Amino acid sequence: MKYRFSILLVAATLLRFVAPAQTIHSPSRKLALTFQLSPAGEPTYELKYGARTVVRPSRLAVLLQDQPGFDKGFTIANVDSSRHDDTWAPVWGEVKQIRNHYQELAVTVQQAAAQNRQLVLRFRLFDDGVGFRYEFPEQANLKYFTVSDEKTEFNLPADHRAFWMRGDYDTNEYLYSTTKLSEVSAAAAKPTPEIATQTPIGPNAVQTPLMLKSADGLYVNIHEAALVNYPAMALLVNGATHGLTSQLCPDATGAKAYLQAPAHTPWRTIVVADNAPAILASKLILNLNEPSKLTDTGWIKPQKYVGVWWEMQINKGTWSYSDANNIKLADTDFSKLKPHGRHAANTANVKRYIDFAGKNGLQGVLVEGWNVGWEDWFGNWKEEVFDFVTPYPDFDVTELQRYAASKNVKLIMHHENSGSVTNYERRMEPAYRFMREHGYDAVKTGYVGRIIPRGEHHDGQWMVNHYVRVAQKTAENHLMVDMHEPVRPTGLHRTYPNWLANEAARGNEFNAWSAGNSPEHETILPFTRLMGGPMDYTPGIFQIKLDQYAPQNKGKQVHTTLAKQLALYVTMYSPLQMAADLPENYAKFDDAFQFIRDVAVDWDDTRILAAEPGDYLTTVRQAKGKDEWYLGSITDENARQQPVKLDFLTPGRRYTATIYADGKDADWAKNPMAYRITRQVVTNRSALTLRLAPGGGAAVSFKPLP
Amino acid sequence: MKYRFSILLVAATLLRFVAPAQTIHSPSRKLALTFQLSPAGEPTYELKYGARTVVRPSRLAVLLQDQPGFDKGFTIANVDSSRHDDTWAPVWGEVKQIRNHYQELAVTVQQAAAQNRQLVLRFRLFDDGVGFRYEFPEQANLKYFTVSDEKTEFNLPADHRAFWMRGDYDTNEYLYSTTKLSEVSAAAAKPTPEIATQTPIGPNAVQTPLMLKSADGLYVNIHEAALVNYPAMALLVNGATHGLTSQLCPDATGAKAYLQAPAHTPWRTIVVADNAPAILASKLILNLNEPSKLTDTGWIKPQKYVGVWWEMQINKGTWSYSDANNIKLADTDFSKLKPHGRHAANTANVKRYIDFAGKNGLQGVLVEGWNVGWEDWFGNWKEEVFDFVTPYPDFDVTELQRYAASKNVKLIMHHENSGSVTNYERRMEPAYRFMREHGYDAVKTGYVGRIIPRGEHHDGQWMVNHYVRVAQKTAENHLMVDMHEPVRPTGLHRTYPNWLANEAARGNEFNAWSAGNSPEHETILPFTRLMGGPMDYTPGIFQIKLDQYAPQNKGKQVHTTLAKQLALYVTMYSPLQMAADLPENYAKFDDAFQFIRDVAVDWDDTRILAAEPGDYLTTVRQAKGKDEWYLGSITDENARQQPVKLDFLTPGRRYTATIYADGKDADWAKNPMAYRITRQVVTNRSALTLRLAPGGGAAVSFKPLP
Repeated sequence: MKYRFSILLVAATLLRFVAPAQTIHSPSRKLALTFQLSPAGEPTYELKYGARTVVRPSRLAVLLQDQPGFDKGFTIANVDSSRHDDTWAPVWGEVKQIRNHYQELAVTVQQAAAQNRQLVLRFRLFDDGVGFRYEFPEQANLKYFTVSDEKTEFNLPADHRAFWMRGDYDTNEYLYSTTKLSEVSAAAAKPTPEIATQTPIGPNAVQTPLMLKSADGLYVNIHEAALVNYPAMALLVNGATHGLTSQLCPDATGAKAYLQAPAHTPWRTIVVADNAPAILASKLILNLNEPSKLTDTGWIKPQKYVGVWWEMQINKGTWSYSDANNIKLADTDFSKLKPHGRHAANTANVKRYIDFAGKNGLQGVLVEGWNVGWEDWFGNWKEEVFDFVTPYPDFDVTELQRYAASKNVKLIMHHENSGSVTNYERRMEPAYRFMREHGYDAVKTGYVGRIIPRGEHHDGQWMVNHYVRVAQKTAENHLMVDMHEPVRPTGLHRTYPNWLANEAARGNEFNAWSAGNSPEHETILPFTRLMGGPMDYTPGIFQIKLDQYAPQNKGKQVHTTLAKQLALYVTMYSPLQMAADLPENYAKFDDAFQFIRDVAVDWDDTRILAAEPGDYLTTVRQAKGKDEWYLGSITDENARQQPVKLDFLTPGRRYTATIYADGKDADWAKNPMAYRITRQVVTNRSALTLRLAPGGGAAVSFKPLP
Repeated sequence: MKYRFSILLVAATLLRFVAPAQTIHSPSRKLALTFQLSPAGEPTYELKYGARTVVRPSRLAVLLQDQPGFDKGFTIANVDSSRHDDTWAPVWGEVKQIRNHYQELAVTVQQAAAQNRQLVLRFRLFDDGVGFRYEFPEQANLKYFTVSDEKTEFNLPADHRAFWMRGDYDTNEYLYSTTKLSEVSAAAAKPTPEIATQTPIGPNAVQTPLMLKSADGLYVNIHEAALVNYPAMALLVNGATHGLTSQLCPDATGAKAYLQAPAHTPWRTIVVADNAPAILASKLILNLNEPSKLTDTGWIKPQKYVGVWWEMQINKGTWSYSDANNIKLADTDFSKLKPHGRHAANTANVKRYIDFAGKNGLQGVLVEGWNVGWEDWFGNWKEEVFDFVTPYPDFDVTELQRYAASKNVKLIMHHENSGSVTNYERRMEPAYRFMREHGYDAVKTGYVGRIIPRGEHHDGQWMVNHYVRVAQKTAENHLMVDMHEPVRPTGLHRTYPNWLANEAARGNEFNAWSAGNSPEHETILPFTRLMGGPMDYTPGIFQIKLDQYAPQNKGKQVHTTLAKQLALYVTMYSPLQMAADLPENYAKFDDAFQFIRDVAVDWDDTRILAAEPGDYLTTVRQAKGKDEWYLGSITDENARQQPVKLDFLTPGRRYTATIYADGKDADWAKNPMAYRITRQVVTNRSALTLRLAPGGGAAVSFKPLP
């Protein structure tokens, strides 16, 4: 040991001479990033927020199959640093314009002992965090290579409080846990039978975005940006050292990524702030993504929609058409199946949703279960499940196309592929052609089940490439896409703005048939899953208690109040928002539904007024091109008084504030559907105090008076 | 041990009462097959040829993942036996009509200890062998299931001489070995560096079709028929017991097959005869395949073709267009690449082949290397290699379409996918559309390289389904297909007659750049690979010595005489025959080329006049719809006199026999290009004696005199 130590000291002395530390500061000097080679020539970085350490010196390493790794033995070949500052406008989003302002450091390191191979470590240091990635330049001795592992460290200085989800290669639909980092391993063992396809990585693995809070009030969020042609990253937690290490999703053979130089990894991102709202306001991940690849974007329409969907979640109807349970897509004559009479996607029922959408100005009607194959679609690792072009006998695609058009409504296509992606890829071209021929302009895809190619995972490189391919192919066909059960998003909606939303987390429907989502769930999601992009959470359930629909729903309910469901349209950002409940329930509570009719889905401005992960969140947003504001305020299981200053309103102007609040005795468990709607005239000097029930919330619309 | 023995005895006594042996005989009683349950309730079969044992009692078992296997504990639930006799006409083939005459035995066995699951063992006993398969009927307790293993035994009675190829999940391109069964393991270790993608199963594994010969002159061939939705079968050899056991190709997870009842395995086939020609004449495998699924078959045309191909094999030209070696299909601008000037598939050169084909009445011109992506297409397990629709800048697809049509020639498309099958499947629809738009009606596919989906093999269930899908999709587009590097064929060309041929064995091109094919190679292929269907062997090389083309060809040559190359057009049956050499070589030997101009590719009759695996083969065939006969006779490394009686000719008619024979001192190694063409008038009472040089052959055309 001693011998080795002294060797290292000598080496350190020598190397320090050639490799001094490189430090850059963020534009306003809030953050400092230091790059340094270790005595063994290992690249390391360190991140500070003022005097406070965000990340202690941490190694950066990518290991390769059948050749030396990019991990050590480096010397510095070149250092570049530059300032970048510009502003860009997203096709749609939370704000009209986004400033992209950072100091960049690009360090080229070289391995004398490995054919002088070079690697570039590129850091972009913003005032609200850092993004860095590995770049593999084209060079004589590196062309095709296989990543066997990436060992990026995030060594935290203390045992932070963590808002985390179990690391898994196939699902993002666990509940979140809130523990200290050192408690992750012990807490991870809870069974989650409601998730059918799970591949847990191990007891110490967590997913990104990982939200952390230090004892001294520093908020740190770790994720990745622009995940393309690479597997998703999870993090392995060392409870003793508070060190995190990247863990990539493997392919069927155990390898991680097949790359061809020039190539690079996604950006590893660390968003830092001394207050929680600033984390939610960060545009760092979007800034690290490539600009839109689509030039013509006029056909992309943020929208609200209803759907033949919740009625299946609550056992009122079914996706399937018959009780047959042994379907062979190529052989079964679906017109000969005996209908069981509970098939929800029948022409008459779909027309009811079209009528409702048309009457209420919602743009879309999603229909699930319209196409043949649902009788035994799940759980068999079966390749030929759906063909995406054949409707059930009771779904009249031509008549519904005509009818929807007459009501100025668009049907939204549904492409559940049950994880059989080889089958979906074979059929994508005819499926999209079918959509164009039948007036569809948006598709919800689904990946419920084990992936085919067998041995691949939802989060592996092959699937990551698939999701991007779907975004590209739908864009080529002028189709918008909403992906369910994909890898967690990383800001790619900037690059492919037709990729409106993803699920990729535990949505509202878990309330219908599992232990459900905890009342704090929606206060954590914005700090975790939503850091990567919009979520199709499917809010708007007004009939909170679900017993009434079917015996198997006994005790099931949504774990919020009705008013909180309204607030989610603002707190859970998405350009695609479902009004998920049944038309008949909205008819019963039409006064509350007015908020859903009114609320925008595209915004010129957004302010996070108050936030604490796991506790509460209040957000207000200005509708695109209008002086209308919409506010959502939610709490966890605890009741809260939320004061709100209205100084975001235009000075000198009067507004009608319509407040959709929890009723007096409202409580998510005991009295969830009590709500009260009040109106008052306000100005930018007014203030409101919103009373949030346990598990409750409030929604407010502000419309200018003439 | 003793205890167990007595238990078995008691069980045996009990079970024998309920499960007597079931014996059936082939139509003319040449063969007898006995089915019996063992004392442990294991299905077994035994096959006899007269008094001689072909297969000793051998177990039949299919093992399943996560549930009891179909291997033991069976009782007999039902026994059915029936006679079948009919005759059918292939769309194209070696004979005009095929008789399908067998005795069938279907035994339904049931497992009391496994939820009364049932299995059907179906045997079809012909006079020239048997086919049997496992059938999994639809039943309450069997719907979706995964085959973890199949353990079908073929217990041979003695240490037969075997003509075998190493068992491998990814290639069929090894040379054959001829050893006793007991010597297989020792012989299997030879390195074969010329095959880039190998996954040897193990030292005791051999491929099917496996050709065997007993000491007392019984010929036995083991293979499979109608391989669909199941992995290919290899055989594990027990050198001590002379027992063979099936070994299925695994998928990426190690499983063998994903099935949904009703389902069945392919037929396991054993062809038996007391003479070698009868093995080659057997239509058992075709008979076990389903009839044609295509009703309109007028567009399917057996044909001869030339191609821009051999010049790349002999290093005269290249598939690639430039010396770039780091291509990204999506990013590279191929029009900007600097051409290296050796690209063979250029418009002018292709026109030369079109001219040649047109002048000589050959129907097709294959062009390899026409499309972008060849610069670094191989060996990188890269997914996006080719797009199948973008020609290199010097290949004018529109002009060539026009030019070929003007010469009454069709271009043959080439779809090498380098094993990246996910990429090919995504692009198949546009690729076939491109073919239709540009006048192509046939495609040669290629699967050189490791398969993507990564972890899958050329011979696994997923790929087996892929090949069938290609046959189906090409048929839907009225395209003929010729697959290279697929799984070995199993008679599916009966079902998909647009699937003209396969490579799936070591073709003629190995002579150009490896140790080559042994002089006996073509005498073994008909007894092995060709038992499953036509091979695109690409014969017709006249310029036998290859040194002249390029320095790296030093010492390379085709391991036959020129005359033997002609004989192969008859001895190697295929409805698709390449004239593989360069037009300029054919111009030099135009008198010999006359045989290729003349020889038919579709036949009304075929007679195997003499054959011995590994030694010699003489075949004569009658051209479709004509009284013209073509004879091919080949030998191994030994010179031979082959007497031929012409009693196949129409009595009373006179024919001109044109004999293309080895020259006087011809020898495959020393003087391979010496040939002699003679003509004589013959009748059905004439006889010829063909003098075959070492590694030589003879070809004869018989045309009736007016």
